[in-house]
Amino acid sequence: MAALAPGATIGIIGGGQLGRMLALAAARLGFKTHVYAPAGDNPAFDVATAHTEAAYEDERALAAFADAVGMVTYEFENIPAHPLAWLAQHTPLKPSADVLAFTQDRWAEKSFLSDLGLPVAAFANVETPADLAAAVERVGLPLVLKTRRFGYDGKGQVMVRRAEDMAAAWEQLGRVPCIAEGFVDFACEAAMIAARNATGEIVTYDMPRTVHEDHVLRRCHVPAGLPAGVEAAGTRMARQIAEAFDYEGVLAVEFFVLRDDDGERLLINEIAPRVHNSGHWTEAACAVSQFEMHIRAIAGWPLPEPARHSDCVMENLLGAEADDWQKPAAEDGAVLHLYGKREARPGRKMGHLTRLKRR
Amino acid sequence: MAALAPGATIGIIGGGQLGRMLALAAARLGFKTHVYAPAGDNPAFDVATAHTEAAYEDERALAAFADAVGMVTYEFENIPAHPLAWLAQHTPLKPSADVLAFTQDRWAEKSFLSDLGLPVAAFANVETPADLAAAVERVGLPLVLKTRRFGYDGKGQVMVRRAEDMAAAWEQLGRVPCIAEGFVDFACEAAMIAARNATGEIVTYDMPRTVHEDHVLRRCHVPAGLPAGVEAAGTRMARQIAEAFDYEGVLAVEFFVLRDDDGERLLINEIAPRVHNSGHWTEAACAVSQFEMHIRAIAGWPLPEPARHSDCVMENLLGAEADDWQKPAAEDGAVLHLYGKREARPGRKMGHLTRLKRR
Repeated sequence: MAALAPGATIGIIGGGQLGRMLALAAARLGFKTHVYAPAGDNPAFDVATAHTEAAYEDERALAAFADAVGMVTYEFENIPAHPLAWLAQHTPLKPSADVLAFTQDRWAEKSFLSDLGLPVAAFANVETPADLAAAVERVGLPLVLKTRRFGYDGKGQVMVRRAEDMAAAWEQLGRVPCIAEGFVDFACEAAMIAARNATGEIVTYDMPRTVHEDHVLRRCHVPAGLPAGVEAAGTRMARQIAEAFDYEGVLAVEFFVLRDDDGERLLINEIAPRVHNSGHWTEAACAVSQFEMHIRAIAGWPLPEPARHSDCVMENLLGAEADDWQKPAAEDGAVLHLYGKREARPGRKMGHLTRLKRR
Repeated sequence: MAALAPGATIGIIGGGQLGRMLALAAARLGFKTHVYAPAGDNPAFDVATAHTEAAYEDERALAAFADAVGMVTYEFENIPAHPLAWLAQHTPLKPSADVLAFTQDRWAEKSFLSDLGLPVAAFANVETPADLAAAVERVGLPLVLKTRRFGYDGKGQVMVRRAEDMAAAWEQLGRVPCIAEGFVDFACEAAMIAARNATGEIVTYDMPRTVHEDHVLRRCHVPAGLPAGVEAAGTRMARQIAEAFDYEGVLAVEFFVLRDDDGERLLINEIAPRVHNSGHWTEAACAVSQFEMHIRAIAGWPLPEPARHSDCVMENLLGAEADDWQKPAAEDGAVLHLYGKREARPGRKMGHLTRLKRR
């Protein structure tokens, strides 16, 4: 595919805040956008040139969508495989459906990373009752049992401390295919946003230190305050993953940072084939945000250096915190972003605030 | 009017690049947008939540528009007075129709500024043949004869060097009401973007030095490289104008910079009651852009300090220059913005590029 020229329409699957921010970034490069999402609260519709509200299985709607766009990308990875495969046959889909197949399945993802020689926690597949004891043996205790598919923000996972609790944990998760992962006693967490385009250009952003509360991202600190060698290792890993997939688009890698007497080292927690909450700070602190970089990467545009101009701390506004918008709106040197969601359910990501610090 | 809360709809009159960038900025604060514009190439429609394509005189369309929005603003000042007055009676209109009445008429504007004691070039009203000689006497030669209404980017003006050419110049402009302005032999030009909200908060951006070619803005340099006293004087003038109007929104003031043995001083060239091309750099170099500041100011939100984080040079992409988008798209440390216009007519503003410089 040649570079997609301004004026073309970029299709975006998913109507949440990531789709919304992708649409805003695409517009700044002169693109039109068309968002496809099932019925619901779809704030991305409000800023897109066009939108289709239809189920993922609605082949007629998908066909019309494919006809209306120059290419398709997506804002989240839990999209049924069949419509994506269909779309990929009718219009360029980036990142590719192959990448998505790996990242939709925690076991396939961990196996892929492990096969690349990248550091991950011990893990084991759990598909039958016989796998339960074997998984405990292989992974050790405590462990975290997670559904292989459709988990996010801590949903679909159970901590297991004793071997005899494995069966109940699997029962609780509905006896679906699971992965057992060794529990990681990390010192802190970090992330890396990378982008790669079809010509093989790769850029990476500075590593944020990430802080989660109740399994949901709360804050990102940039710079992370980690040794340069740790950040360099994260950059190398992100590049290696992007290259192994022939990746096109933005890729997020989430890390555990382990600390012992020898210093810090990274374990990869998980990867996401999309723009990511741990990269929202780039919109406020870099010349080119992760959202624009994703659009550039999928459209076959050049990838400039992100050029971070400020240190910063990004904080998510969750649930009713966004009702208090007048307080963050009054802060000097802060960049406020609200997502235009209709309902502020508890814990729901409603916006974010990035406080810039003069370097 | 209390502060407009996120989720409300902001109406924007005018569908060009300024309306588009206002809509993008409003979206980032969680607002919906509704753009109203006559038929034509309206790139703002592509990013607005809703749009109405109708003539300004279409009262039915205006009524539906007023019903659909929480307030109305506009992206340019050459809107017929009658529909605006009608709108102002049915929904909050900001900046006010009073302000617009002054800035739609060069003679009223100059008189207003002069009455405030602000420095402007000599000027005289030309409405009848008898005014021609009087204007030359009052203003001196050379002078610039300009239509009082509907001029922009050098359209509707003629340079007059000899008294005997006045009648022909007025003929050329259609014998409409005009203003004669003393020709200013400036050293350079500059501008000031200010914002004021209903509670009287005022913020100003750093002063850019502006460079025009063929009466169209070509580049802005920030900082301007002018003495601190000159910039402070520009800030004071912009504040004085905003206060005199009880202004709500972003206001642009364009200056001539005169240089003589005593140093530099400013003359006000013209003011615009809206976001302005000389403030586009703020999007790339400040935490809060002029577009967001305008939305905040009209919505009654707090106005944070703009917090410029980088020096920069903004360059307009005119006409076919935008066809060459791949070159600016590849520049490191530059922020590219393309407006999504369909046709690149010669001299037409198609986008802009802001090159950031590490301070």
